[in-house]
Amino acid sequence: MPDPLSLPLSPAMARTQASPIVASRGWLEGVTFSADQPLINVSQAAPMEAPPLPLRQEIARIALEDTAAHLYGPVLGLPELRAEIASQWSSAYHAEIAPREVAITSGCNQAFTAVMSTLAQAGDEIALATPWYFNHKMWCDMSGVTAVPLPTGEDLLPDLEDAARLITPRTRAIVLITPNNPGGVEYPAELLTKFYALAREHRIALVLDETYRDFDSRSEVPHYLFRQPDWHDTLIQLYSFSKAFRLTGHRVGALIAAPERLTQVEKYLDTVTICPNQIGQRAALWGLQNLSQWVAGERAEILARRQAILDGFPALAAKGWKLLGCGAFFAYVSHPFDMPSSQLAPWLVREAGVLLLPGTAFMPENDPRAEHQLRIAFANIDRAGITELFTRLARIDP
Amino acid sequence: MPDPLSLPLSPAMARTQASPIVASRGWLEGVTFSADQPLINVSQAAPMEAPPLPLRQEIARIALEDTAAHLYGPVLGLPELRAEIASQWSSAYHAEIAPREVAITSGCNQAFTAVMSTLAQAGDEIALATPWYFNHKMWCDMSGVTAVPLPTGEDLLPDLEDAARLITPRTRAIVLITPNNPGGVEYPAELLTKFYALAREHRIALVLDETYRDFDSRSEVPHYLFRQPDWHDTLIQLYSFSKAFRLTGHRVGALIAAPERLTQVEKYLDTVTICPNQIGQRAALWGLQNLSQWVAGERAEILARRQAILDGFPALAAKGWKLLGCGAFFAYVSHPFDMPSSQLAPWLVREAGVLLLPGTAFMPENDPRAEHQLRIAFANIDRAGITELFTRLARIDP
Repeated sequence: MPDPLSLPLSPAMARTQASPIVASRGWLEGVTFSADQPLINVSQAAPMEAPPLPLRQEIARIALEDTAAHLYGPVLGLPELRAEIASQWSSAYHAEIAPREVAITSGCNQAFTAVMSTLAQAGDEIALATPWYFNHKMWCDMSGVTAVPLPTGEDLLPDLEDAARLITPRTRAIVLITPNNPGGVEYPAELLTKFYALAREHRIALVLDETYRDFDSRSEVPHYLFRQPDWHDTLIQLYSFSKAFRLTGHRVGALIAAPERLTQVEKYLDTVTICPNQIGQRAALWGLQNLSQWVAGERAEILARRQAILDGFPALAAKGWKLLGCGAFFAYVSHPFDMPSSQLAPWLVREAGVLLLPGTAFMPENDPRAEHQLRIAFANIDRAGITELFTRLARIDP
Repeated sequence: MPDPLSLPLSPAMARTQASPIVASRGWLEGVTFSADQPLINVSQAAPMEAPPLPLRQEIARIALEDTAAHLYGPVLGLPELRAEIASQWSSAYHAEIAPREVAITSGCNQAFTAVMSTLAQAGDEIALATPWYFNHKMWCDMSGVTAVPLPTGEDLLPDLEDAARLITPRTRAIVLITPNNPGGVEYPAELLTKFYALAREHRIALVLDETYRDFDSRSEVPHYLFRQPDWHDTLIQLYSFSKAFRLTGHRVGALIAAPERLTQVEKYLDTVTICPNQIGQRAALWGLQNLSQWVAGERAEILARRQAILDGFPALAAKGWKLLGCGAFFAYVSHPFDMPSSQLAPWLVREAGVLLLPGTAFMPENDPRAEHQLRIAFANIDRAGITELFTRLARIDP
């Protein structure tokens, strides 16, 4: 019998790393957790509770009464949802965003892959600020697109001159995530304005992933790029409904771009999924129209957890840990141990009952900082859980 | 202001044709339909009624009671659904299919794009039997993969020697759809065995899209390929839950392949959608476990409509029409007019109140047969509707 791995396999896909989330679940196999040290899972930015009851009741009502919620819908999404996003975004960004500039996708990852497929093809280059979001890197690898690491400084913010230097004739876009995953840092509006100007000057796209915008700690408008009269030529924004309304399992995301870009995106979405799922879209619409107060409460809770990280960190800092960034759902830290992160993370599962991702999931291979870094997705644990996490981390000696 | 189209745009995506479904909706704009000649829409294989009430009630119950139905789940799908498919497929194909050989996807289109991304990359070739399914061609175009047309004869079946001749060192797979979209033809098991042997000899994949397997008119096992001891090396099967349970809006599909292949597929699915939507997966599972009698009734109705096509066609044949294929949800026909199909289709909307797709949606450019062909997706119209459709088509004189 021939070796199955000698079957046709795209070299680009074969070279692509497995998802670190999937890989990390493997570390749990065969490990038992005692009642006095249960697993603390801070590996993924994923709500663990159901959406609020009124939203679940609305989903149930839709399932029973709305025939269209079970059938194909428009490729670019439910018109009412596109219109609601346009309206709320216009307020939030002090700009005028039209429904035809909005598309709905099967989650924000698909918003990224759809947009990128219209921008770049095999042989092209995309600049990703580091630490990057691993699925962005995976898309580049499996598509034959080169992910060019855009370095960041001590503050986890990229430098404009670094970015200018790495742009080549094959560069198609700069991708920034704010508030950042995995770094937690919130990008200042002025920095985004400068990156917009840089992208515009080089006639490349600026892709802003704002999945965590609902949990930004700042009260001001996060940026003014939608007020630029010519933003169509440069700016693409990505968003997710997974976090605000706890709809991760429904797969609903969105993107804002020029209508001409969305005509191209439509080809991709039609080919890959035909349309976003209909119940999830209606759930997101109902959430936008009815849950703003509830989301404000969720935000306050996340900000309280963020504060708990800031309050508790000095005890770790005394042991040599550093808090590199903290915001959105994430703390990005460096540890003081000789054991590299890629070994420390599975060790932490066995020895401390803590599941988190190592910096190697978010950094280019051979970047020496990766093996000192860890991401803590703190959104799922409350203040007591954060205290317990820090207690466990303070006493390890790997 | 610079021309927005001078923005970075992947040439591969720019060259990709828009979905003919999306394009055909444009033909409806500005057209009004009278009460005595309402629109007959036979453009898409899409149920227009809701799933049966017990399934909708189950979806409502899940939405209210099952927290996990709102949260992320495994990338390769709900374990219970993978196990149920494995069990039912094992019976249906007289074979032993294991849950780890099954993956769930966000619709069958995504099953195709996921599998193809593991097989082929830019510069490779894929053989698609013609007439082909337009989304398969679109994926090839946007991915820089060459779609090599595999011709079919009068019976819409491909010839093994034709296929052997077009295989090159860059060929990665042969894609066959049975029962066929758009041709309606059901591939004989013996022909599939021969194609399996050909693919195996050349160490390329045989991808079988069996989206319409629940509506096969034959009672015997559709093929015995899952009984081949070494099918892992060659065979990949695709399936959709959209048609059997009227779950088009939920986006749930499946694929059966070697576990080693699914490890690669998992990278793609994680990157593009993280997981299939959870409510749709639970709906599909409940359908598999509870709706087999109901699906049998749906199949009987589709077969009755197919018979109505066969019974009514002589009236069109007398005017020079030909029925090239009839089965699954489709009749594939040739028309007798000088007006090419690509003009005839929009003309039919305005003049006869009929929306269908021209052969050009399914055939390589410059294939002269395309402009004589039309696809009728008859599944959505009953016997009376088919009579009315044929009456209208019999009296046109474009």
